[in-house]
Amino acid sequence: MSDPSLVDLTLFLVTQYNSASYTFHLGLILKSSGHFATIPTKIVGPMKIIGPVLQEEIRVPLATFETPLWPSTNRGAAVSRLTSGIKVVVVDDRMTRSVLVEGPDAEYVSQVVGALKGYRHELSQVVTKTSRFAHLENWHVQLVGNLLYIRFEMTTGDAAGHNMTTKAADALLDWIIERFPKLQYVSISGNYCTDKKASAVNGILGRGKYVIAEMTIPRVLCQKNLKTTPEQMVNLNLKKNLIGSILAGGVRAANAHFANVLLGIYLATGQDAANIIEGSQGIVHAEVRNNDLYFSVTLPNVIVGTVGNGKNLPFVLDNLKLLGCDKERKAGANGRRLAVIIGAAVLCGELSLLAAQTNPGELMQSHLRLERLEHEGSKEIS
Amino acid sequence: MSDPSLVDLTLFLVTQYNSASYTFHLGLILKSSGHFATIPTKIVGPMKIIGPVLQEEIRVPLATFETPLWPSTNRGAAVSRLTSGIKVVVVDDRMTRSVLVEGPDAEYVSQVVGALKGYRHELSQVVTKTSRFAHLENWHVQLVGNLLYIRFEMTTGDAAGHNMTTKAADALLDWIIERFPKLQYVSISGNYCTDKKASAVNGILGRGKYVIAEMTIPRVLCQKNLKTTPEQMVNLNLKKNLIGSILAGGVRAANAHFANVLLGIYLATGQDAANIIEGSQGIVHAEVRNNDLYFSVTLPNVIVGTVGNGKNLPFVLDNLKLLGCDKERKAGANGRRLAVIIGAAVLCGELSLLAAQTNPGELMQSHLRLERLEHEGSKEIS
Amino acid sequence: MSDPSLVDLTLFLVTQYNSASYTFHLGLILKSSGHFATIPTKIVGPMKIIGPVLQEEIRVPLATFETPLWPSTNRGAAVSRLTSGIKVVVVDDRMTRSVLVEGPDAEYVSQVVGALKGYRHELSQVVTKTSRFAHLENWHVQLVGNLLYIRFEMTTGDAAGHNMTTKAADALLDWIIERFPKLQYVSISGNYCTDKKASAVNGILGRGKYVIAEMTIPRVLCQKNLKTTPEQMVNLNLKKNLIGSILAGGVRAANAHFANVLLGIYLATGQDAANIIEGSQGIVHAEVRNNDLYFSVTLPNVIVGTVGNGKNLPFVLDNLKLLGCDKERKAGANGRRLAVIIGAAVLCGELSLLAAQTNPGELMQSHLRLERLEHEGSKEIS
Amino acid sequence: MSDPSLVDLTLFLVTQYNSASYTFHLGLILKSSGHFATIPTKIVGPMKIIGPVLQEEIRVPLATFETPLWPSTNRGAAVSRLTSGIKVVVVDDRMTRSVLVEGPDAEYVSQVVGALKGYRHELSQVVTKTSRFAHLENWHVQLVGNLLYIRFEMTTGDAAGHNMTTKAADALLDWIIERFPKLQYVSISGNYCTDKKASAVNGILGRGKYVIAEMTIPRVLCQKNLKTTPEQMVNLNLKKNLIGSILAGGVRAANAHFANVLLGIYLATGQDAANIIEGSQGIVHAEVRNNDLYFSVTLPNVIVGTVGNGKNLPFVLDNLKLLGCDKERKAGANGRRLAVIIGAAVLCGELSLLAAQTNPGELMQSHLRLERLEHEGSKEIS
Repeated sequence: MSDPSLVDLTLFLVTQYNSASYTFHLGLILKSSGHFATIPTKIVGPMKIIGPVLQEEIRVPLATFETPLWPSTNRGAAVSRLTSGIKVVVVDDRMTRSVLVEGPDAEYVSQVVGALKGYRHELSQVVTKTSRFAHLENWHVQLVGNLLYIRFEMTTGDAAGHNMTTKAADALLDWIIERFPKLQYVSISGNYCTDKKASAVNGILGRGKYVIAEMTIPRVLCQKNLKTTPEQMVNLNLKKNLIGSILAGGVRAANAHFANVLLGIYLATGQDAANIIEGSQGIVHAEVRNNDLYFSVTLPNVIVGTVGNGKNLPFVLDNLKLLGCDKERKAGANGRRLAVIIGAAVLCGELSLLAAQTNPGELMQSHLRLERLEHEGSKEIS
Repeated sequence: MSDPSLVDLTLFLVTQYNSASYTFHLGLILKSSGHFATIPTKIVGPMKIIGPVLQEEIRVPLATFETPLWPSTNRGAAVSRLTSGIKVVVVDDRMTRSVLVEGPDAEYVSQVVGALKGYRHELSQVVTKTSRFAHLENWHVQLVGNLLYIRFEMTTGDAAGHNMTTKAADALLDWIIERFPKLQYVSISGNYCTDKKASAVNGILGRGKYVIAEMTIPRVLCQKNLKTTPEQMVNLNLKKNLIGSILAGGVRAANAHFANVLLGIYLATGQDAANIIEGSQGIVHAEVRNNDLYFSVTLPNVIVGTVGNGKNLPFVLDNLKLLGCDKERKAGANGRRLAVIIGAAVLCGELSLLAAQTNPGELMQSHLRLERLEHEGSKEIS
Repeated sequence: MSDPSLVDLTLFLVTQYNSASYTFHLGLILKSSGHFATIPTKIVGPMKIIGPVLQEEIRVPLATFETPLWPSTNRGAAVSRLTSGIKVVVVDDRMTRSVLVEGPDAEYVSQVVGALKGYRHELSQVVTKTSRFAHLENWHVQLVGNLLYIRFEMTTGDAAGHNMTTKAADALLDWIIERFPKLQYVSISGNYCTDKKASAVNGILGRGKYVIAEMTIPRVLCQKNLKTTPEQMVNLNLKKNLIGSILAGGVRAANAHFANVLLGIYLATGQDAANIIEGSQGIVHAEVRNNDLYFSVTLPNVIVGTVGNGKNLPFVLDNLKLLGCDKERKAGANGRRLAVIIGAAVLCGELSLLAAQTNPGELMQSHLRLERLEHEGSKEIS
Repeated sequence: MSDPSLVDLTLFLVTQYNSASYTFHLGLILKSSGHFATIPTKIVGPMKIIGPVLQEEIRVPLATFETPLWPSTNRGAAVSRLTSGIKVVVVDDRMTRSVLVEGPDAEYVSQVVGALKGYRHELSQVVTKTSRFAHLENWHVQLVGNLLYIRFEMTTGDAAGHNMTTKAADALLDWIIERFPKLQYVSISGNYCTDKKASAVNGILGRGKYVIAEMTIPRVLCQKNLKTTPEQMVNLNLKKNLIGSILAGGVRAANAHFANVLLGIYLATGQDAANIIEGSQGIVHAEVRNNDLYFSVTLPNVIVGTVGNGKNLPFVLDNLKLLGCDKERKAGANGRRLAVIIGAAVLCGELSLLAAQTNPGELMQSHLRLERLEHEGSKEIS
């Protein structure tokens, strides 16, 4: 049963008694405007995922207005089932918040930076007191004149960790200003975190889960299922995703449309979907190996959780259950499982779109066919 | 009445006859999983918008899992009603798609670049044939060795224009390859467009609607309604949005959380919400003027439309109607109206969050209060 | 004879008369401190350049403290002589300066932007009056709130054009402020030019000469002269220059060491060598074609001239003469010739270094050998 | 006595015996072309520097073709002597080299990353064996598919450290590949270092000396010596250096012309001047404080040394002596002293140019005056 509070239902029953019989007229008015946005969602897959985190075939919900995303991602998923599968690893996992203070001059703030190194234990305790799931991993500083930006990195269990790190950063800020009274508060967030903005810092220093998904696609499958060749895929990735993105002044964003798949899953699983901004900054690496296609997607900033804001909505609970991310597990394990699935889905979507773009004829025909179906078929072309 | 096809309803009636009386047990199972994602939506405002495009008080729907976004944006809207209002202009409007071809060498492709300048009329006609709403405005090229990226810019009426430009680019590609037979197709999209990826090109060359919203907030309102001062706001914007973003290796992204408000409206109005990536790349400029606060948000890449994919969903139609973007107007006018409203809403959200961050006490108290309400209150802190 | 004013010479003659014979002791003290910096310079090459701008074998002076740059570039030059040569084109040529003004609000400055389009003729005349070599090509604007940045693009004959565009921008600024009296001066340079700073704007909109150099190297030459294969070169370029630079948060900078060669020639020819910053933002594109190596360097921002500051120094005149850039030619032709030569030299340097890096053994041996020679041999490794 | 090997001297003596008298005709041909580039150099200053590293008045040599740089920097230096001085700190100091290897898949390379953490001692020893001045400080990794980039950070004594880190990286690479035999060499440099290329990584992770210079300029000095006000300076810095650079798609480059002063000193002191590319990526922060001007320059990537390539040239030795960077000191102290002086000089140059740009009249007059002197006076305007 879904959450009734989100739906403005008027249910009415008109009972007519006519001689010896009853007639029931049931009516339902479902009024949504101003109360919820209903994003069309389909389940695609299953995708074949092979370790090390999980070895399963997984079906994935995608919420999107851009319906061609479904068959496109599905094509990639179908290929995965014909290969040995998609191997996905999570190589890092942390959330960040940067506070901003200022001192009398650069010398003073640099001394603070030095002194803080001696307080690792104290700072860790400050964090732990704010949440049993928050653990301080490290911090990184930047100085500009007398300004001091401190970017705290924490693990946050199964939560994406926006709030947990903010709360911890608040406490850290208090502690630091008390300890170094010449410092003054400037901001709880100094934009060096950085949240939901295109930057380089998150890719370099880490924010969210660092996910890599790889698949080897036999040449024959490339030809039969993707209507392309390993060479064409490598060539397109080189000239479009790498060189094209470099020309665009892109920042660590060498892919075709990671964002589309990310948005679809983020919405379906109650994530703070504005984090697709960092999420979209990832890289496709493809090679011809032993005559087959090696295809990988690297996503350094997958910011997702399985608890927290939005996660108690009925459709989110359903989707997390479908993904197997609702089990009792060690803290953080559900979140990483979700990240693994996201990596696999992004790979499927990217593989399919790139394959389509290697072949002008296919694209135009698909375009026309979908046009006839009153869909605009290549909307997901990025 | 909303779209029933999106909702999987099981309505059941259990009728019990018990001696002389009937008891009706009415039940409803609303099953959403795999069919739609129901994003909580509230209408905030009204915001007071003063020309030149529109002079109205507008209420704005925001779909989000991050519910603190509503009161935050509302606070900015309330301030707007106490001032002379938010002035919003749209200074540019175009959509882009970049095709990618290659020739035998750089000399040849540079000759093609030169020759194309003589075919402006022909290229315009090619575009017009693909849609009566598409008009070729200009194109821009990049060469890398023998690779040629051509970024076509078009107006696309009230559509955001992803598909319209893709269809036109397909036709342009055909025309060009036919005319210059030594060119070979590489990709319908060369990532120099660039769609849904963090880059610099869109801000510099334009993609979507270039929106600027400005408001002057009297000092007394800053103090009373925003619990801050003009000087504190200017100071925070300088050190967080400008310097902090520069430190982060940010790319034309000098703001706190444009993305949150953009996502909220994009989802509520059926936009391709992955375009918040470009949308988030904007700049806040604030100054103390005549003792009051001048506050502006500049969003060079608002990619929205009022027709196209997603726009026929019932809740979207309702929301576009609420925003007054459903009227019979000159092609493009509804889209620009929507962009104006978005600019105003982003200003309200940014103003409120920055004001909160100038005051450490307020933030922490708000945090704790919202915690008690089982919300994580500063989630929107960016 | 070089410029004596730069050299502090003390020449002394000690004449000893000893019985029937004279002995002359000639001495020379050449004191430079505080008067000039003497950068070691060698002439490398010749490089074989094949049209369309010039078809010659050219010897190129490189001034550098990093002496391994000479043999490295020389190796590339030697390869060029064994192939059909380096084909170099200049596909664009313009210099820029951005002025910064502000108006009362965004609406006003956007109206100014619109109005300026009607004054193309007047603005061109303003430019022409400041120098007979300056011609206004175009301009590009950016608006932030009420701020207006206008980036003027001009051709500047054989000068790099820093001063010519500044002088013209000064005059344009006067004209504009007089015409639109609500505008106020903020800066003669708004950093949107942008000069000597890492950015994306110059690559996208153009600044300096846009140079592409290409060479096809037969497989056998790769093996014999470069100790590598076409496949190894393509592989290294992909993983180092493209992906590695993307990871670094690089901005249109996908190469190994364009900067080293640029600096060497810029210093040898009296250029404003701080413009290597923009110059270094270029891209290497390499492919295996017909079993051979296609290798290209694309440099969108080569900012050089053959007249202006520094060009009258004796060694510069000598070097420009050596390069054939001192002839009577149509305005701009000497500058473009220099740019062509620079493109070829950068290709030679890049080719050689990348080849060395494909082979770990060679590098280490070269390192050790040069160490024995008391040079640090791989200093140019970038 | 300067290095005679750099100068191609033909000294000739024509002795004529004419009846009872000898006439000596002494001639000197100093031929430079192809042997050295003679960059005009002047000593500017002194600048008043006040601890913590040094408290002295220092005169600084600037080698440049752009002669207006001298009076401009001198004006800043003169101001420094009238204030309490320029306070300069070095908050970090390290050099980097990134190696690139690849494994069979992402899982394997992520295991290598984990395992390496257990070999800190061994890796440190590998480094130390290559040079007694090299010490491994830390390393940072990036993974893309099965590619592994390892960026090693080292201190390198008084050398800038390009070669020292390369040599150490060579040894580390050998060690790692031997230990993890499934890894394969790709490149001794993976461009994640990154050397002489515009990127974000160096500012975020550190490369070279991180220098901050600050000065407070009393209002009356702003007015009298710089013909400006604190408010005008803050305003210009905001709109030009910060917002203007953001618009340009600038990468951590929020200044007017750091590059000019850096180049001047780098050439005068034998540095690898192509490192002005990273060097130019710095930030100006200015504020009105107590009615006076607080002005600071932050340069995170000053890559300089006092030993190594180029440092034995006579003019370099002279200049290093002038700067007091030739003393017997603890390893690294001379290099940091040089970095401090560079920070102060960059501040002087930036202060002066920005002040000039606040005043349109002054600029134009200076321009015209210098024009008359047949110099193009505002060449350094950036």
